[in-house]
Amino acid sequence: MSPSKTHHIEPWKLTASEALGKIQADELTVQEYAESLLERIKARDEDVKAWAYLDEKRVMQEARLLDEIPKKNRGPLHGLPIAVKDVIYTKDMPTQFNSPLYDGHFPETDAASVRILRHAGALIFEFAAIHVGPKTHNPHDPLRTPGGSSSGSGAAVADFQAPMALGTQTGGSMIRPASFNGIYGFKPTWNSVSREGQKIYALMYDTLGWYGRCVEDLVLLANVFALQDDEDEDRSFQGIAGASFAICKTSIWPMAGPGTQDALARAADLLRSHGAEVNELELPSAFDDVPEWYRIGLHTEGRTSFLPEYRVGKDQIGQVLIEHVENSDNFTRKTQLMASDSLAAMRPVFDFIASQYTAIITPSVPDEAPVGLESTGSHIFCAMWSGLHVPVLNVPGFKGDHGMPIGLSLVAPRYRDRHLLEVGKAVGEIFETEGGWETKIK
Amino acid sequence: MSPSKTHHIEPWKLTASEALGKIQADELTVQEYAESLLERIKARDEDVKAWAYLDEKRVMQEARLLDEIPKKNRGPLHGLPIAVKDVIYTKDMPTQFNSPLYDGHFPETDAASVRILRHAGALIFEFAAIHVGPKTHNPHDPLRTPGGSSSGSGAAVADFQAPMALGTQTGGSMIRPASFNGIYGFKPTWNSVSREGQKIYALMYDTLGWYGRCVEDLVLLANVFALQDDEDEDRSFQGIAGASFAICKTSIWPMAGPGTQDALARAADLLRSHGAEVNELELPSAFDDVPEWYRIGLHTEGRTSFLPEYRVGKDQIGQVLIEHVENSDNFTRKTQLMASDSLAAMRPVFDFIASQYTAIITPSVPDEAPVGLESTGSHIFCAMWSGLHVPVLNVPGFKGDHGMPIGLSLVAPRYRDRHLLEVGKAVGEIFETEGGWETKIK
Repeated sequence: MSPSKTHHIEPWKLTASEALGKIQADELTVQEYAESLLERIKARDEDVKAWAYLDEKRVMQEARLLDEIPKKNRGPLHGLPIAVKDVIYTKDMPTQFNSPLYDGHFPETDAASVRILRHAGALIFEFAAIHVGPKTHNPHDPLRTPGGSSSGSGAAVADFQAPMALGTQTGGSMIRPASFNGIYGFKPTWNSVSREGQKIYALMYDTLGWYGRCVEDLVLLANVFALQDDEDEDRSFQGIAGASFAICKTSIWPMAGPGTQDALARAADLLRSHGAEVNELELPSAFDDVPEWYRIGLHTEGRTSFLPEYRVGKDQIGQVLIEHVENSDNFTRKTQLMASDSLAAMRPVFDFIASQYTAIITPSVPDEAPVGLESTGSHIFCAMWSGLHVPVLNVPGFKGDHGMPIGLSLVAPRYRDRHLLEVGKAVGEIFETEGGWETKIK
Repeated sequence: MSPSKTHHIEPWKLTASEALGKIQADELTVQEYAESLLERIKARDEDVKAWAYLDEKRVMQEARLLDEIPKKNRGPLHGLPIAVKDVIYTKDMPTQFNSPLYDGHFPETDAASVRILRHAGALIFEFAAIHVGPKTHNPHDPLRTPGGSSSGSGAAVADFQAPMALGTQTGGSMIRPASFNGIYGFKPTWNSVSREGQKIYALMYDTLGWYGRCVEDLVLLANVFALQDDEDEDRSFQGIAGASFAICKTSIWPMAGPGTQDALARAADLLRSHGAEVNELELPSAFDDVPEWYRIGLHTEGRTSFLPEYRVGKDQIGQVLIEHVENSDNFTRKTQLMASDSLAAMRPVFDFIASQYTAIITPSVPDEAPVGLESTGSHIFCAMWSGLHVPVLNVPGFKGDHGMPIGLSLVAPRYRDRHLLEVGKAVGEIFETEGGWETKIK
């Protein structure tokens, strides 16, 4: 055991990058860090209920093992606690997939993503809850939802209970909780990170993503997951001054509430005041059908994905999933193929449009997190980008009429992930400083 | 225990449909059937080596449990043994994914496909070997390959060691072993059956399929996996007389050896002699690039899929996979997207062309199974259809210069799976009777 040290700041308050720096500099042990986070969780769990499962003993045992690894054998994420969402297999802990069908289910294998993280030295923390199990509260207001379905992950990171978390997005499950919780949420390009070992909802949309409280932290995982853009000097980002942003309200703009409307207007003003060009982008009318094609794809893919659960325990899955399997929309195969082929055809078109700008700025959510825990909010503004496979970054910084956080989505062409993170860092500094919202959690 | 019965035919010789009929008629118990197959395996394993793993005790224990299930609670596949390939998780048996990295790996969960089959009453038999572990021999000639990577599955079914088997295809891993072993192999439309719980090679190609010794048996699994075509009276199949087939040699026809050339010519003659119209189909030149787009997709998807194995144990995976992860082709993201978008654009074009015919007939393999066990043969004639997502059925019936079986592929538009099986049944009756090949295995 290394000697305990005095810290000027509680370890749980650190960002992932700060904590890794301290561990590397021998100013913090993995055990001290884990202990501090577990204390934070204990103090806050009654209010937030982010965790479906928590095996403190196991976490501390792994932390001890990590501390014993000689320095030269340590991975790039050595000692970094990462909360893992309930639909991703890990070998230590029960995976419930949001259904009692899987109670006490202990897969003996790690999902591909968890395997990569463990190998890099991460301390896989626990399962963050989704619908079943404890209802997670928004840490900024316990009467409001933290968003779904990566709600536990989003709430835990916002509430300083974990520096980072994995999540997944099929519709808006990464970006919506990021906006509702006032944190960064990154959905990389579809299929740039393996989803092997995750429950499939819709193969053509499901994407693994991650949460952090700053962009530097998101970059840590982008490195470990080997995200790589093409080298392209022409499009390299030189800072906000001289950059060119597009505000894209999309055809569903009438769904935006006052909080999101204000945020988007304010974002444009702020970026202009920092020397960027900001123009409104109206997508060609062919994009008007994207939300419907997305919906057809989701339902028809669900028909395949949930057949096992439907057969084995129809009474234990939600009505929405039953309707997918039973094809209650009566979508023909012809309609299914039309939707997926049309969506596929729009992807390069969107890439081309997006490549004309530094980034596209668009709503993450209709408005701040709604009151109540039953509904986790709408994915309406996120679904299109899930369907188009493009990387999306939620940048926090704005607030709604009730003082809750509101974020905006930055969007880039496919496989411009590193570019998007770089732009997001500069944009985030402005939004966080001048956007009007600041977390009261401490 | 039910009383033992006299059988006019050894149970292991039965097709799946025949065996299910006998079990339903109380003429055969699941235990008797399983025992007969285990005896067959024991007698033949030294020559064929189809099995990576065999837990007879467990099989017999499950067979006993199945026999105890009251008739009214039995599933549609009650008592049907199905061999399961090594890349599909099952909860009972170690899954090795063709790498020593996973030695002794016991996932505690079933793949989605296995879950559906178990729920239908199937007796999950064992793991059929692939590259690592015993090298499987072609049951028709032990000096020849049974094809890969579903080699164990294909050989076991051809050799009457299992009535049916699951396999997977990314390039030609379902269709090639079917041709080399002289059996039916069916690769349904991409994503029509969940691949959850399978090792991912290339998300956009990987497809679960199955083997049988007759089309009726393939239909059993098509039912359980809920394959469904659109209702479409205009295109309903009325028998070979009056049907319209297209012979499609594709741009890689120069790769076809004498066995495949003869088979294709003979197939055309036979179908014509039964009253069908048979025309040669030359695909538009845009299809010439499909094999290259396919290859780019395979390599660039492998970059994502094999990152975990590369990180955890680079020395324990094959050179090809290392090259995928290291992107040794130096494919840019631009090239990767061009290939996947172009392939996506060709899918509806091919569907339209294929919908003009009862079915398209095309080579399954360059020729009969080559001598030697090191190489499992070429997927060259299969890759295009894997990339286009269309259903493919290998129909046996022809023979090569060395008396080994040669099959041909029937191809239909996406989600015309049931149609393809129906056509394949009629075509198979002709090919098997008049094609010139007959199995000598007994």
